[in-house]
Amino acid sequence: MPNHSDPLDAMFQALSDPARRGMIDRLCAGPASVKELAAPLDMSLPSVMQHLAVLETCGLVASTKIGRVRTCTLQPETLSLAEQWLNARRIGWNESLDRLGSFLDAQDEPRTGDDT
Amino acid sequence: MPNHSDPLDAMFQALSDPARRGMIDRLCAGPASVKELAAPLDMSLPSVMQHLAVLETCGLVASTKIGRVRTCTLQPETLSLAEQWLNARRIGWNESLDRLGSFLDAQDEPRTGDDT
Repeated sequence: MPNHSDPLDAMFQALSDPARRGMIDRLCAGPASVKELAAPLDMSLPSVMQHLAVLETCGLVASTKIGRVRTCTLQPETLSLAEQWLNARRIGWNESLDRLGSFLDAQDEPRTGDDT
Repeated sequence: MPNHSDPLDAMFQALSDPARRGMIDRLCAGPASVKELAAPLDMSLPSVMQHLAVLETCGLVASTKIGRVRTCTLQPETLSLAEQWLNARRIGWNESLDRLGSFLDAQDEPRTGDDT
């Protein structure tokens, strides 16, 4: 049974679908109605609403309904959680490579000081 | 039926599990055996192997077996795919905010030139 206690679980899960990533692409350009989000997608409106619900549940998208129009807005602070996680891993990885590089340099250093 | 034709689908799916993210954390510090990866996880070895298979299938981790020891290594170029996707979204989002800012600044400009 999935346990989405960590917000990263739900967010990465949400990002694993191309239709949902497409919706985020569109929302990067500014708020959009559900109709606008659905336009490029080859799927039924209920399917679009399901994908939207996933994006809303994990906090990537917020929506407000005025009259009959629901307008969706990207919540970039949630997207930045993923960015922060990846950045921290990249830093850890680079430090690991630096340590390996230093180790290999130390191994390569000629003990007699000649260049050959 | 899931269709993982886009490598991002499988990668974000792989990152949606805390045990798999934990394995990546460990591998950022350098290669590790399956036993080392399993040590901090409260799960059976078959479960660990399943998670590892997900990480290998999407290209985040590679492993080699010498004798009875399988050693796993992070494949950071796959992780950077996610980073690139997020960076491109952030740039798009920032440009969108800049356009909104310019629009609001233009609206705020006093037409008579006074400061009040």
